Amino acid sequence: MSVRAGIVVTGTEVLTGRIQDLNGPWLADRLLELGVELAHITICGDRADDVEAQLRFLAAEGVDLIITTGGLGPTADDLTVATVARFCGVELVLDTELEARIAAILRTLMSRRPVADEDFDAVLAANRKQALVPAGAEILEPEGTAPGVVVDGPADGTPVVIVLPGPPRELQPMWSRAIATAAAQRAIAGRTEYRQATVRMFGLAESGLADALRDAQTRIAGFDALEITTCLRRGELEIVTRYEPEDDDTYRALVDFLAERYPQELFSADGSLIDEQIATLLTGRTIATAESCTAGMLAARLADRAGSSAYLAGGVVSYSNEAKVEMLGVDATLIATHGAVSEPVAIAMARGALQRFEADTAVGITGIAGPGGGSAEKPVGTVCFSVALAGREPLVRTLRLPGNRSDVRERATTVAMHLLRRELLACSATA
Amino acid sequence: MSVRAGIVVTGTEVLTGRIQDLNGPWLADRLLELGVELAHITICGDRADDVEAQLRFLAAEGVDLIITTGGLGPTADDLTVATVARFCGVELVLDTELEARIAAILRTLMSRRPVADEDFDAVLAANRKQALVPAGAEILEPEGTAPGVVVDGPADGTPVVIVLPGPPRELQPMWSRAIATAAAQRAIAGRTEYRQATVRMFGLAESGLADALRDAQTRIAGFDALEITTCLRRGELEIVTRYEPEDDDTYRALVDFLAERYPQELFSADGSLIDEQIATLLTGRTIATAESCTAGMLAARLADRAGSSAYLAGGVVSYSNEAKVEMLGVDATLIATHGAVSEPVAIAMARGALQRFEADTAVGITGIAGPGGGSAEKPVGTVCFSVALAGREPLVRTLRLPGNRSDVRERATTVAMHLLRRELLACSATA
Repeated sequence: MSVRAGIVVTGTEVLTGRIQDLNGPWLADRLLELGVELAHITICGDRADDVEAQLRFLAAEGVDLIITTGGLGPTADDLTVATVARFCGVELVLDTELEARIAAILRTLMSRRPVADEDFDAVLAANRKQALVPAGAEILEPEGTAPGVVVDGPADGTPVVIVLPGPPRELQPMWSRAIATAAAQRAIAGRTEYRQATVRMFGLAESGLADALRDAQTRIAGFDALEITTCLRRGELEIVTRYEPEDDDTYRALVDFLAERYPQELFSADGSLIDEQIATLLTGRTIATAESCTAGMLAARLADRAGSSAYLAGGVVSYSNEAKVEMLGVDATLIATHGAVSEPVAIAMARGALQRFEADTAVGITGIAGPGGGSAEKPVGTVCFSVALAGREPLVRTLRLPGNRSDVRERATTVAMHLLRRELLACSATA
Repeated sequence: MSVRAGIVVTGTEVLTGRIQDLNGPWLADRLLELGVELAHITICGDRADDVEAQLRFLAAEGVDLIITTGGLGPTADDLTVATVARFCGVELVLDTELEARIAAILRTLMSRRPVADEDFDAVLAANRKQALVPAGAEILEPEGTAPGVVVDGPADGTPVVIVLPGPPRELQPMWSRAIATAAAQRAIAGRTEYRQATVRMFGLAESGLADALRDAQTRIAGFDALEITTCLRRGELEIVTRYEPEDDDTYRALVDFLAERYPQELFSADGSLIDEQIATLLTGRTIATAESCTAGMLAARLADRAGSSAYLAGGVVSYSNEAKVEMLGVDATLIATHGAVSEPVAIAMARGALQRFEADTAVGITGIAGPGGGSAEKPVGTVCFSVALAGREPLVRTLRLPGNRSDVRERATTVAMHLLRRELLACSATA
């Protein structure tokens, strides 16, 4: 790839880890889509010297484009625009039309709560700073009150700088306008166009996938043109491949190879998420949950999507044994005989949810999240799952999940989603 | 502060945002505790040139200490140790004793699944690379299979480099050993010792706090010696103050000032989290939840803590109106008259949970998370809360929460925690 970029993230709160930086990863994805290679992300606090040092570092590394985030507010520690202007060797000038537009935004914002005229004047004075822009810069209209700018570097062969605000809800809509500016387009003119596609798998170890990819390399002609990164997340393997449009057939061959080798594990060849697939599979159905160790995490995840009320009836968090008996109708002798964490109890929970919520689809989860409660026979991480669909024998599985309390509960929620998917698919296949 | 540090995060998966970097924020906290100023965090992919460029940049910026994370594995793209050695101007040497210790670790790991001898030899060969260490470096024994190293910079006045592995579960236990080495202690010898303390508030806007702090500045002698950062998170304000031990009285005066000005809003003067406070307040009690829009998020949050089974009986996710009636005994005419999102229904849900779970504490939440379902009278973000304690009139509140579906649901969960805290405190005060 012939065009490289760097991202400068400014903000003491981000540097010290009090706020998680969401802009770096988001911009990294946008650059990837564009075919621009991201070489460095640098983070510093609200200190002009540190910001300028990072700009000079990236310029010295020969990047074609620098994107800065943060430091565009009205207060004294917001110093990115002035620092970028100094770096680019241009003066700051007051853009009076921009100042008027910012004032209009502020007037609208402040009209919602009455303020004294003198207070409003003080706010305007503070915000005048936001209308000071580097001479010759292209201005990006604000989403909040802070405009962005796109500035040419200090000399030929030095990077173009895109200056964006810190809040993601402001930065994201401004990005497309920023990259469309003439200066940005000049900077990225030499890029290679790439496609990017994602395959998702579940129930396969990362080392197993590594073996398969080595095998694919020997079998698929042109394999080395594919740039593959794999990542294990929430128990799922995400395989992201970047390739030039002319290598599309090679990519198709890879997907076919993986689908043939792992017909059970490969659940998404088009990048769709398990949550999206479940939502589609639940069309026309009604689901209820019965959760012990996950304590509502599965119900909450099913409700994450807008429109989930079309299929989600509800659920019971049956943390205590009494709740399992009273709220789900689990037979108390079943618990006494097999223990609360057992396959018969998981099935009874799912069946209880099916019946009590008058649903046609239900999931039961009971397990030992730890750190206490484990035994030799049922160590911490033991989780029993059942998926009950009306008119079918319930599916039941017991797994031992790795990690701490939080890992076990999160993994159990994901496992439940995948068992639910398989059972819904099996049901529709036999219907 | 007289000692500055930089962190170099390596790894293409981190640079491209596919994995979130947890090490930077964690190390930032450790440095803060030590009284070392963190100047820069830089992130790059698994490319030796980029890693070395970042090391040179930080050295040129005059930092006293560099910490690198990642790139210590056995594969070809794990190149941090070799790059640091080149940067420091020392050779890599094979430490045969370290090699034997790594082999012993691998033997133990691999004894769990049988492998052929030749495969084991291949693994050993790959891992030999991990026993190549910079000449003169102090070695940090591995937590996984990757040892860390601490290396003196190329010359006097250049930074000491601490090289740590990427996985947080390996990096974190190795940190205390790394900073205890003679080289690291030399690098940070000139640091200033600081204390750090946290105050938490809820129900106050950030601008209100800014006003209060300006006021505190005029009233509290020595205020400017306090280094205060504020952060709004999950609807709570977190106020973190760093100060030298001699300014302890000034910090106490600030906390007293805030506590007097905001007796309702300041809920934690010692940094304790609302979750910890709720766990303590629930000692000897039994709680149940009744959730609509949050759909299990409150129950799941109450179950986050180990030992929560002592007080959490369970909950109902009553997403549909039928579930509210059937599972919680909410009067259907109440829903027909006032709507599912209404204070009478929130109270009936809390009371239903109290009764059905035989609990003495219950929370009901019903609201419109959006994006659909809003009306002029009850716009998206309208959420009704009720806290019912046995023997007391239930508390009820209606709020309009800002943001999108996910924001509204998360904020509603936090609001419920705070209403629960206030009601439990009021109950114990009148008991």
